[in-house]
Amino acid sequence: MTDIIRQAKNAKEAALRMYSLSSGVKNNALLEIARVLSERAEEIFGANQKDLDEAKKTGLPMPLRKRLLFDAKKLNSVVDGLKSLSGLEDPVGKTLLARQLDEGLSLYRISCPIGVIGIIFESRPDALVQIASLCLKAGNAVLMKGGSEARHTNRILATIIRDASVVSGIPEGWITLLQSREEVRDMLELDEYIDLIIPRGNNEFVRYIMDNTRIAVLGHADGVCHVYVHKDAQPETARRIVVDSKAQYVAVCNAAETLLIDSEIAEPLLPELARSLSEAGVTLHGCERSAKILDIDRVDDWHKEYLDYEMSVKIVDGLADAIEHINHFGSGHTDAIVTENGESAETFMNAVDSGNVFWNCSTRFSDGYKYGFGAEVGISTSKIHARGPVGLEGLITYKYKIYGKGQIVEDYASGKRSFRFRPIESFGHS
Amino acid sequence: MTDIIRQAKNAKEAALRMYSLSSGVKNNALLEIARVLSERAEEIFGANQKDLDEAKKTGLPMPLRKRLLFDAKKLNSVVDGLKSLSGLEDPVGKTLLARQLDEGLSLYRISCPIGVIGIIFESRPDALVQIASLCLKAGNAVLMKGGSEARHTNRILATIIRDASVVSGIPEGWITLLQSREEVRDMLELDEYIDLIIPRGNNEFVRYIMDNTRIAVLGHADGVCHVYVHKDAQPETARRIVVDSKAQYVAVCNAAETLLIDSEIAEPLLPELARSLSEAGVTLHGCERSAKILDIDRVDDWHKEYLDYEMSVKIVDGLADAIEHINHFGSGHTDAIVTENGESAETFMNAVDSGNVFWNCSTRFSDGYKYGFGAEVGISTSKIHARGPVGLEGLITYKYKIYGKGQIVEDYASGKRSFRFRPIESFGHS
Repeated sequence: MTDIIRQAKNAKEAALRMYSLSSGVKNNALLEIARVLSERAEEIFGANQKDLDEAKKTGLPMPLRKRLLFDAKKLNSVVDGLKSLSGLEDPVGKTLLARQLDEGLSLYRISCPIGVIGIIFESRPDALVQIASLCLKAGNAVLMKGGSEARHTNRILATIIRDASVVSGIPEGWITLLQSREEVRDMLELDEYIDLIIPRGNNEFVRYIMDNTRIAVLGHADGVCHVYVHKDAQPETARRIVVDSKAQYVAVCNAAETLLIDSEIAEPLLPELARSLSEAGVTLHGCERSAKILDIDRVDDWHKEYLDYEMSVKIVDGLADAIEHINHFGSGHTDAIVTENGESAETFMNAVDSGNVFWNCSTRFSDGYKYGFGAEVGISTSKIHARGPVGLEGLITYKYKIYGKGQIVEDYASGKRSFRFRPIESFGHS
Repeated sequence: MTDIIRQAKNAKEAALRMYSLSSGVKNNALLEIARVLSERAEEIFGANQKDLDEAKKTGLPMPLRKRLLFDAKKLNSVVDGLKSLSGLEDPVGKTLLARQLDEGLSLYRISCPIGVIGIIFESRPDALVQIASLCLKAGNAVLMKGGSEARHTNRILATIIRDASVVSGIPEGWITLLQSREEVRDMLELDEYIDLIIPRGNNEFVRYIMDNTRIAVLGHADGVCHVYVHKDAQPETARRIVVDSKAQYVAVCNAAETLLIDSEIAEPLLPELARSLSEAGVTLHGCERSAKILDIDRVDDWHKEYLDYEMSVKIVDGLADAIEHINHFGSGHTDAIVTENGESAETFMNAVDSGNVFWNCSTRFSDGYKYGFGAEVGISTSKIHARGPVGLEGLITYKYKIYGKGQIVEDYASGKRSFRFRPIESFGHS
């Protein structure tokens, strides 16, 4: 435990100094990291080969080995990401509110870094670079723990990021790569130093984190996403959206797990949809009515996240029924309605209690890159702090500043002075 | 436990229906609550008298009995608060971001209610009305637990609020007053129904809550606030701010607990400040140097929140020393610098890691009313979701809506289409 305490203390000290970093220093550091990553490409690929060899030996399943791969293509995309991040507006130091409280007493709400962020992420080594660079841009120190199957790759990436950033003027200690699972457990107790934990992983793991720390957690639970085909849906639009939402990439949280369809149009549309899904390799499980129509198995758990070529199907009796099903069995992630009826779409989007509600497009659009956020630290199904795909702004908080001229509260309490609130116009970024 | 589960379920159902409430319905409900509170004033005063009588019998200390009092003055202020709240802009349905992702594919971030909020508050019955009305304005359902010493007053206030709001079209079940401490404990387990817990109370209590729930908690820990008298301070300004920060009202979290003063000016300024503080009834405790100068006791805990006529004093060696002390021993609540030097003030305000950082004014200004927020649900020393005094916006989250025309992700993955991000200008409130 002593090691992690020391590292967390160092991170806290670095974070305090990072509050005053200029945008220029942070952006130059991002560019320098990009430069050194390219320069040391062969070393990185060598380390990655070690991880891949070990993964093969230990029999890691193929999809996981794919995620582990860090080749020239991944490096290019990571380097491009760093360059584009360095060009983005600085999220720190923005004036979010400016108000005169009284003559000569001015209140400002200014965006600022959160402090120290603990991040636990899955096996993709490119995620390490993305997350570290987002934290740096937002002025936060970071404690990171990656998947142990990627440890050689993660180690060299973290070393390059640390060295290149410290050379560029970022305080030492701002980035630490944790080595073991025990350190993650220890980290959960360090609420004195760590301000936010972002766990990326499966549902159970995120719940474990939430149950074992008093530090704030920004985590997504699961993605039980729905596509609801409303009675006024255009059939071909419905077919394309249902197939894409389910089968475009099944192993991700924004893939649809349940198809809802209005009873009025279930015949002949449902069998047509089922045929297209079957052609895409998808096995269906049904409610009582749909199981009869399609001659399929019954669903045993409407809250199931398959993350596979499987899908639940339910016939519903109109909009209200669909909304109720989603709010009851969904996970608040992403839900779409297919309809040509704008009023029904608007009702659906307002009443469904999810972070992302779509009209006539695939649930797979629910993603920080596709939203134009440049990058994402994760997708939050929490409603607090940040919801949906979380970009830079999820790594930012704010503070209030008051500029006075010697004012005291007693003068206002006694009635000698009174507040005269008025907005301060024409404020830019401070 | 069954009772509280049922109540939480009802609250969740009410919350889902509250997403679609119009501003008009909510504002009329607030005005109707105000009307009925005035109409039934005598009943309320009668219930309050019962609480006061019992408090006297059980020997509740005088300051707490003062907080318990709900008289015509309190009623008027509560009724005024409701009227002004009904006139405020609706925080729900605001467009926070509008972006075209591609031709015919538009992304909006829209503010919306959080859902169900659990609030535990101290003995002041007027707090019940304020908190319930803020929740209603923000479209949230609420489970509330007030201090048991105010139970007669709380019960009639909650009944009036419920009846008057339901008559006005707010879904039944949106407000529940919990009766017992056991129900609070049970509430902490209901993360399926409750989205946010706001505990108002002492430090220990808030920590207990944080340690015993996986629901997000918006709580302030303690208020160890500092006034730092910089070497370039104007002495009379320093004197007024120090006395007001400490002694204007000692029992509150934004009262200063520690005075820091630069060694260069400690003599003769510190003895002068000590004299004024002593005249205001304040006992000082010092560091090694200040204890010698003032002939006072030594401080035994720099992190102590006195909430009384006591104050710690430390002589520091300049700005960096002061900042370090505050970041180490402070609680991230409110800290002020007194100086005529703008550059030092700016450095202080950027480097001190607190929610509220002030230049040349009293720490006592740290308050939702004084910030012009109309009301506050509490002061957050957390950095996540909401920081500092929290008004309506702390009770709000957002969701993403995408309006499409049948787009699927496969077309973008295959390169057939590509994203063309551009801001959607001229959006107002949706």
